[in-house]
Amino acid sequence: MDAVKAQKLTVGFEGGRYDILIGKGLLRELGGLLAPLRKNAPLAVVSDENVWAAHGETFASSVDSFDPVIVLPPGEGIKSLEGLSRLYGDFARRKLTRNGLVAAFGGGVIGDLAGFAAATWMRGVRIVQVPTTLLAQVDSSVGGKTAVNLPQGKNLAGAFHQPELTVIDPAVLDSLPERERRCGMAEVVKYGAIRSRSLFEALLEDGEPDLAGLIHTCCQIKAEIVARDERDFGERMLLNFGHTLGHAIEKSGGFETYRHGEAVAMGMVLAAEAGEAMGFTEPGTVNALRRALTAQGLETEYPGDLMSLFPLLSADKKSAGGGVQMVLLRRVGEAFTRHVAFEDLKRIF
Amino acid sequence: MDAVKAQKLTVGFEGGRYDILIGKGLLRELGGLLAPLRKNAPLAVVSDENVWAAHGETFASSVDSFDPVIVLPPGEGIKSLEGLSRLYGDFARRKLTRNGLVAAFGGGVIGDLAGFAAATWMRGVRIVQVPTTLLAQVDSSVGGKTAVNLPQGKNLAGAFHQPELTVIDPAVLDSLPERERRCGMAEVVKYGAIRSRSLFEALLEDGEPDLAGLIHTCCQIKAEIVARDERDFGERMLLNFGHTLGHAIEKSGGFETYRHGEAVAMGMVLAAEAGEAMGFTEPGTVNALRRALTAQGLETEYPGDLMSLFPLLSADKKSAGGGVQMVLLRRVGEAFTRHVAFEDLKRIF
Repeated sequence: MDAVKAQKLTVGFEGGRYDILIGKGLLRELGGLLAPLRKNAPLAVVSDENVWAAHGETFASSVDSFDPVIVLPPGEGIKSLEGLSRLYGDFARRKLTRNGLVAAFGGGVIGDLAGFAAATWMRGVRIVQVPTTLLAQVDSSVGGKTAVNLPQGKNLAGAFHQPELTVIDPAVLDSLPERERRCGMAEVVKYGAIRSRSLFEALLEDGEPDLAGLIHTCCQIKAEIVARDERDFGERMLLNFGHTLGHAIEKSGGFETYRHGEAVAMGMVLAAEAGEAMGFTEPGTVNALRRALTAQGLETEYPGDLMSLFPLLSADKKSAGGGVQMVLLRRVGEAFTRHVAFEDLKRIF
Repeated sequence: MDAVKAQKLTVGFEGGRYDILIGKGLLRELGGLLAPLRKNAPLAVVSDENVWAAHGETFASSVDSFDPVIVLPPGEGIKSLEGLSRLYGDFARRKLTRNGLVAAFGGGVIGDLAGFAAATWMRGVRIVQVPTTLLAQVDSSVGGKTAVNLPQGKNLAGAFHQPELTVIDPAVLDSLPERERRCGMAEVVKYGAIRSRSLFEALLEDGEPDLAGLIHTCCQIKAEIVARDERDFGERMLLNFGHTLGHAIEKSGGFETYRHGEAVAMGMVLAAEAGEAMGFTEPGTVNALRRALTAQGLETEYPGDLMSLFPLLSADKKSAGGGVQMVLLRRVGEAFTRHVAFEDLKRIF
């Protein structure tokens, strides 16, 4: 078999570093990539029904002799304390010891849930992230944030737990439903909006985008930011552009109506509108953002009542003192954070 | 009010350090001790019904203007995913933001549960430990281990989360039930057995022990060990003397029949017996251990069938390859770890 051409990024964080490998066909070489991490330790593979149906065979033919894979039902519902409890039970049955290794093979839900389970099982076992959606490949699999949702809000319980390795195979995206691809592109637009005008402009061009190239650029931006602010007390906040309002939108639809990326797309437009209205954001930015999102097939307008989002906003991790910490754009490619009063937002919306 | 005389120990760990303050009457000064950590951040106080009934008034008269204290039912049952879920709900209702502070005011169960909740709420908020049992004061409040029990085993889900400060007031032990005091003394005996012959011998003397002094010595030993091995991959294992078999004994009684300290007392004797039988432990050590434990009113003999413990042992975090990593004594005051095959243990018992 020819070796797959892979690009390597290294992410530094307090107390260590790990590699992100990006290459079409890498999934077929996963067994070899995991071998130095496995040695004689038990391996628990966590996936979901859709991912396993599409790519389980490739995975299993590369990674040999492991306990039956843990195949969870697809969807955000499993990213809960109940899902966590189930996963702990699966780890116990597989006798996953402290030297064990978890492999998260799926989208953001699987990465976040398996990541949090690994962060807390026996106070922490190692994890390898093998993201299978565009959203997870450009965003959630890099940076070590793990979490589950609570009835009170999204991602309210979680941990920082950096992986040993992240393996990204853009070839698995060929089977990705169009809606999932769009959701991922929302985060790609975000990276352009906050940090890279050239990435942003590439998204406005006609024709098929070079996905592997986009993924590499996004991971590079994220790795740089995370290395400087692993614990999310400063610069890392910028990655939340569109997410504060986006989370409220997701919640308004009971995490059913809107996917994460769809909600973030609407949230970015709202944040840009707020920025323009308050005079922080270069005029024309909202329009540019709408064009880029529309080019990727994303809706840019929240169809519900904006006022209904405020009670949800005040439950946000970043809310305090009658307002919320928001990411605003100065212009495309440049972002900053600012505390915005709910009153001001209400007047604008 | 006269200032309380307090002793200070400093615990170093990767990425920081924190103080342990020990002094009779310190609880009355808690408000002042917390002030520099609180500033304008929200504070969530977690306690249990018994502790709050006995010491809530003192606490509340020192620490002013906080949201209603979270008073949980007493007992190990709350140290579960269900208890964790309840605590998350309480944090949400109190609008505990990322800059917030949790104060755990209770025994080991409260410290472990509130500690794990703080470690994971919004991916980590700060915690102050105010232990109220002898067991928690000499052991569980120092070192940053937090956890909940799962149906599959004790402390299976958890995190390392160092406190900002630990405040120990031995005066609160005056209201401690005799059984709880005995349980704490089991851990004090443990510190003597693994690290300090002089501490061990002090426990054999007649008369009331100087509790504040004992607590200081135990915290000092633990702080030294934890500073060298925060993540429990080496020396910290020694603190588990008696705990591997102890956990199995606790589990055999459904966490009802035997308290932690009672089970650890029996576990230490069994570990010493195993060590003597295998020729690792100086003859006479078992007898010395029995004398020290009996002097503290502790039972030294597991009344059940020892063979029934083995299935429970193999579910232990430290079990692997048909055996378990055990802490053995060379003599009183000196311990080491060794992998012991279940076969060998069965033959001895």
